[in-house]
Amino acid sequence: MTSFCVEFVSRRTRCHRITKWTAISFTLTLIATTMQADRSFSDEGMWLFNNPPNKILERKYGFKPTAEWLLHLQRAAVRFNDGGSGSFISPDGLVLTNHHVGRGALQKLSTSEHDYTNTGFHAKTRADEIRAVDSELNVLQSIEDVTARVNAAVTPDMSPAKAHEARRAIINTIEKESHDATGLRSDVVTLYQGAVYHLYRYKRYTDVRLVFAPEESIAFFGGDPDNFEYPRYDLDFCLFRVYENGKPAKIEHYLRCDPQGVREDELVFVAGHPGHTDRLDTVEHLEFLRDLAHPWRLNSLFRREVILGAFAARDEENARRAQVEILGAQNTRKALLGQLGGLQDPATMDRKRREEKELRERVAQFETSHNARKQKADQAAWDNVSKALSTWRSIYTDLQMLEEEQGFNSRLFRLARTLVRMPAEDAKPNADRLPEFTESSRASLEQRLFSTAPIYDNLEIVNLGDSISVLVTKLGADNPLVVKVLAGRSPRDRAAELIHGTKLKDVAERKRLAAGGPKAIEESNDPMIALARLIDPPSRAVRKKYEEEVQEPMRQAYAKIAAARFAITGTDTYPDATFTLRLAFGTVKGYNDEGKRIPPWTTMGGAFEHAARHNNEPPFRLPDSWLKHKDKLDLTTPLNFVLTADIIGGNSGSPVVNRRGELVGLIFDGNIQSLVLDFVYTDEKARAVAVDTRAIVEALRKIYDAGDIADEIVGKTDVTSKPARH
Amino acid sequence: MTSFCVEFVSRRTRCHRITKWTAISFTLTLIATTMQADRSFSDEGMWLFNNPPNKILERKYGFKPTAEWLLHLQRAAVRFNDGGSGSFISPDGLVLTNHHVGRGALQKLSTSEHDYTNTGFHAKTRADEIRAVDSELNVLQSIEDVTARVNAAVTPDMSPAKAHEARRAIINTIEKESHDATGLRSDVVTLYQGAVYHLYRYKRYTDVRLVFAPEESIAFFGGDPDNFEYPRYDLDFCLFRVYENGKPAKIEHYLRCDPQGVREDELVFVAGHPGHTDRLDTVEHLEFLRDLAHPWRLNSLFRREVILGAFAARDEENARRAQVEILGAQNTRKALLGQLGGLQDPATMDRKRREEKELRERVAQFETSHNARKQKADQAAWDNVSKALSTWRSIYTDLQMLEEEQGFNSRLFRLARTLVRMPAEDAKPNADRLPEFTESSRASLEQRLFSTAPIYDNLEIVNLGDSISVLVTKLGADNPLVVKVLAGRSPRDRAAELIHGTKLKDVAERKRLAAGGPKAIEESNDPMIALARLIDPPSRAVRKKYEEEVQEPMRQAYAKIAAARFAITGTDTYPDATFTLRLAFGTVKGYNDEGKRIPPWTTMGGAFEHAARHNNEPPFRLPDSWLKHKDKLDLTTPLNFVLTADIIGGNSGSPVVNRRGELVGLIFDGNIQSLVLDFVYTDEKARAVAVDTRAIVEALRKIYDAGDIADEIVGKTDVTSKPARH
Repeated sequence: MTSFCVEFVSRRTRCHRITKWTAISFTLTLIATTMQADRSFSDEGMWLFNNPPNKILERKYGFKPTAEWLLHLQRAAVRFNDGGSGSFISPDGLVLTNHHVGRGALQKLSTSEHDYTNTGFHAKTRADEIRAVDSELNVLQSIEDVTARVNAAVTPDMSPAKAHEARRAIINTIEKESHDATGLRSDVVTLYQGAVYHLYRYKRYTDVRLVFAPEESIAFFGGDPDNFEYPRYDLDFCLFRVYENGKPAKIEHYLRCDPQGVREDELVFVAGHPGHTDRLDTVEHLEFLRDLAHPWRLNSLFRREVILGAFAARDEENARRAQVEILGAQNTRKALLGQLGGLQDPATMDRKRREEKELRERVAQFETSHNARKQKADQAAWDNVSKALSTWRSIYTDLQMLEEEQGFNSRLFRLARTLVRMPAEDAKPNADRLPEFTESSRASLEQRLFSTAPIYDNLEIVNLGDSISVLVTKLGADNPLVVKVLAGRSPRDRAAELIHGTKLKDVAERKRLAAGGPKAIEESNDPMIALARLIDPPSRAVRKKYEEEVQEPMRQAYAKIAAARFAITGTDTYPDATFTLRLAFGTVKGYNDEGKRIPPWTTMGGAFEHAARHNNEPPFRLPDSWLKHKDKLDLTTPLNFVLTADIIGGNSGSPVVNRRGELVGLIFDGNIQSLVLDFVYTDEKARAVAVDTRAIVEALRKIYDAGDIADEIVGKTDVTSKPARH
Repeated sequence: MTSFCVEFVSRRTRCHRITKWTAISFTLTLIATTMQADRSFSDEGMWLFNNPPNKILERKYGFKPTAEWLLHLQRAAVRFNDGGSGSFISPDGLVLTNHHVGRGALQKLSTSEHDYTNTGFHAKTRADEIRAVDSELNVLQSIEDVTARVNAAVTPDMSPAKAHEARRAIINTIEKESHDATGLRSDVVTLYQGAVYHLYRYKRYTDVRLVFAPEESIAFFGGDPDNFEYPRYDLDFCLFRVYENGKPAKIEHYLRCDPQGVREDELVFVAGHPGHTDRLDTVEHLEFLRDLAHPWRLNSLFRREVILGAFAARDEENARRAQVEILGAQNTRKALLGQLGGLQDPATMDRKRREEKELRERVAQFETSHNARKQKADQAAWDNVSKALSTWRSIYTDLQMLEEEQGFNSRLFRLARTLVRMPAEDAKPNADRLPEFTESSRASLEQRLFSTAPIYDNLEIVNLGDSISVLVTKLGADNPLVVKVLAGRSPRDRAAELIHGTKLKDVAERKRLAAGGPKAIEESNDPMIALARLIDPPSRAVRKKYEEEVQEPMRQAYAKIAAARFAITGTDTYPDATFTLRLAFGTVKGYNDEGKRIPPWTTMGGAFEHAARHNNEPPFRLPDSWLKHKDKLDLTTPLNFVLTADIIGGNSGSPVVNRRGELVGLIFDGNIQSLVLDFVYTDEKARAVAVDTRAIVEALRKIYDAGDIADEIVGKTDVTSKPARH
């Protein structure tokens, strides 16, 4: 799956995948809105673990989570640092996530001889568990509010440039202090678009081993056509195990599985890492997405899907090499088309406009009675967002092409860029560094930089050649930088020359250059290093402009808008998603669609019927293992189910737990009607889609001959008897 | 295959398909150029039948075509009016073309029950031959130079707007006079970008019946991956028969087949309808293609390929419905990527710049000695092209979205537009009408308007919904026209409303509206008619601006450039392709590629080997008929071959004939190295690719049990004995 940066700069290398979203637009009617809905009757919200929706849960469901309950769930939840969620499900470090979250790791372990992505994997013993080449898992240990400290460093008299520098410095410093003091990965997270700053401390696991994966054909049964659809029949799970000091990690907080599963209308919770939402964006910010950002990204995705599809069609090995990128592009394309459909619906935007007008009027009324000067400043915040967006528009192309690397889509280029920037950043005090080069980020950076994941020349040439062609179009063939990039060749020939000429495929060479400091980089005649050197000054320049003239003013403006909103509606609210841990809740519930009742569950037997309806042709062909063992299966076993919890891309792999905190499901998708959740919550038809843990256990035991793993999941007891409560 | 308009206005409804072109760019070296090459040693040229390359043929090959030889070939050549070439190959009206040229007709005859495109078709008797729903075949009867008459109507003192009107009026009048006098379809063709005007008179055949088609899987064996590649293994042919008065037409000029086939290095000719080239474009015009037109079209094609691909993936019937559009989009995408690769190669553009500089210097020298005023006017021509291009750029978006219908990609919308425009145009004198509504074009127009070709609601909704979404992005969500188009709905919902609401699927309703004149259109409350009425004024306005401020000045300027070139280099030259009949020549010849010798032929046995190399997986899976009859086949039968003749998209289906005018092959593709033929001819590696007629005969006899058809092709004699020469 393709990764997209959640927020451009604050942690530009910490990305999430837009995992689930759909292409089919529909008119938004009767949707509950952030402003107007009485939240006590809706399951809205991606809540902070340090500000949980206690009142709503108690009023609507009579449930009051204790501090222990919350802490347990928080520490059992796992973030896959390349863009998904997961959870600990055994005391021996077993981690449950989606197959599509693990797909990147599977791909990096696969070769043309051992294609684990498509044929699956099963470690019969712990000795057979194989280590992922560059996975990093994060487990949230604590949250600390550092808003006051961050804001104290930024004074009102500062220019945006100065304010940006000061804010970066204090954030880098807070992170370093925390990292030095605790040894934990320490990230300052920007919430409410800039109103609040929290310090998140994570335990990092980097020895992550593959335990089990089913075949892609059942994990992603139905492929792109069924993606974001329901009813659904996907066994989208896989299992890893984290190790420490060469041994399975001992995990205190893990989720026990309730083998009885979940009932209809039962209250459930989702603990995961939603990547990005835009619910608190101003209308003009949404227009920016509608008119510029989404169309831009979609054009890029359409192009990638076609170019990679043509590459993959040439032969089986090409198809294997490009598979993860293609599925990622398809997934994000379907998601963004769905979002764009919502944004292009005049009814949606009219509603957003009305809400904004109402908020501004209420701000005006509220502040008038309090402080006229503050009122003026608050009203000016919307204009300041507008000004920042205007600057963003003006630099959008350069930003995408250079700093976002859309003109240089190549893993080898990205490695070269890191190598080129590293000595320059290392020479600065920690507080002044780009966030991805700070001391607290170093371990993660080096893990990526020295990754042994395979790099394929032919795929690199196709990707780089095509992106240089886009660069020529976007910046102009006569642009002096473009002329230098091409060096007299066609984009394709130049890409071939660069990929064949660089030595960066060799990890030892990367280590040599990294160890050599500025001199090694300056003196290198590696053509990819030379290219990265060439691009660096203009790329840094446009990033600087973005940070100082877009990001910083927007943070300040959104902080004012958020503060005004808090003052009016109270602080019992949740921030937009930021790929950090959130708590969502809801019930298992079907819905009505075009006069048809969609029941909450599908069954394993339904998968066979769905395949038959599509002539068993890919992507509706079940794997041989399923056909072979069909007779043994209890075909009534629940396979997938839907729930009303508020999720979005990044939540893939999140555990679904019951009131007792027991595992009952595994989020892997949202239905087509959930497409608008980026902007606004609705529970009329929008549903999260989960794998039922009963299907996981049934498949492990009866299809995959993996009873030992099933035993580990259900606590070594028989599937028909209840495990002990914790 | 998708059709593209060759030239925007002169006959905007007469299109050609960019049939064969490739995605892989390479550095242009050692290419012969129009200006500099000594043509007596190259096989360059798409020659006019009234200005054949006699000198070159005699000097290089010792061959002198007679007037009879030329007329025979001219009248045996057939144009498929929706974008391809073909030829008569029997006295009973049998027409040979490519399967991919006939694909549109096959698709329109197919249903979910009878899928002739994929499963093939064989009329066992003439009574079984089925009539294509809206095919039109044109056979060129005569050519008349009308340059003087056209230019006389346009005086130097006229404004561009007046000049455009005067030119359109004289062209419409010449066509009408010719049509009235002869009953023949009469088209004034613009040659050398505006220097020369010829009147082409065609016999029209509209009763076109399907005789035979092999399965798509062998006609397009290797699919998109093998498209524009060589060696190749495609039986890309199909057969139609033209009827007159309910009986097979009696054809005087048809091509006899030489069952011995062709030999290596043998001189051969291609008579066909190349669609469009840009060899005489100014450098700035090429930059316009590189920087704007090609990227624009590619973005649109990437998008269509993905959207249609997702539609097709849902089920088999969707796949069938979208097949022709998908293959067309893939083909054009691969062609344009190849062209763009050439245009983005600094070496290509530098060479074009040097040539242009040299031409302008020679014009200056030449004219100085003749006429200083003329010299100044000629030099100004380049600036005038530049000015026109600048205007074109400024209206490009509106032109594409509105008049080119990219914002309304729907067959029902196109029908509605024709119905809306018809009464308005009919009310004008013939001379003042839009070209597609003149009296001489009426028969072709009505054939399309009242076509019974199936229209599929779900495909229409996907196409229209997606294109309206593009419209919103391109023109802006707040554009008053866009607001009216959406009418408060999302693009997708609006499309569904329009497609479900219109009655234009019913041919009788179209006839009723067409017969009702302006009143019927004004009073119609059909939502698609209302949409076409809404779009018409701004769409006509941008077309008018294009015609008056881009097309007319460019014609005048290019006429000057061409005249200057004639004065310097003589008139022994050929114009850029215009989807009119041209004569190309060359020899059957292999080539060297990356140190490997590529032989000129492949064999039928090679097809089986190629399938095996790709695990017999689609698109490399041979049809059952081939597997079943493999044992009977002479596997050494030549299947495809390459030749040096100068062809381009639109030449698909062209006959390849020997010195005796006997059929030996059937053009269906160009190899990857032929990608740059749009700009410049080269015979180093660029090759046309043809089906060998021996494979057609072998397959008809031994695979398809169609010996009677084989007999008709080889003149009812045994394949091993020579037929009589004519």
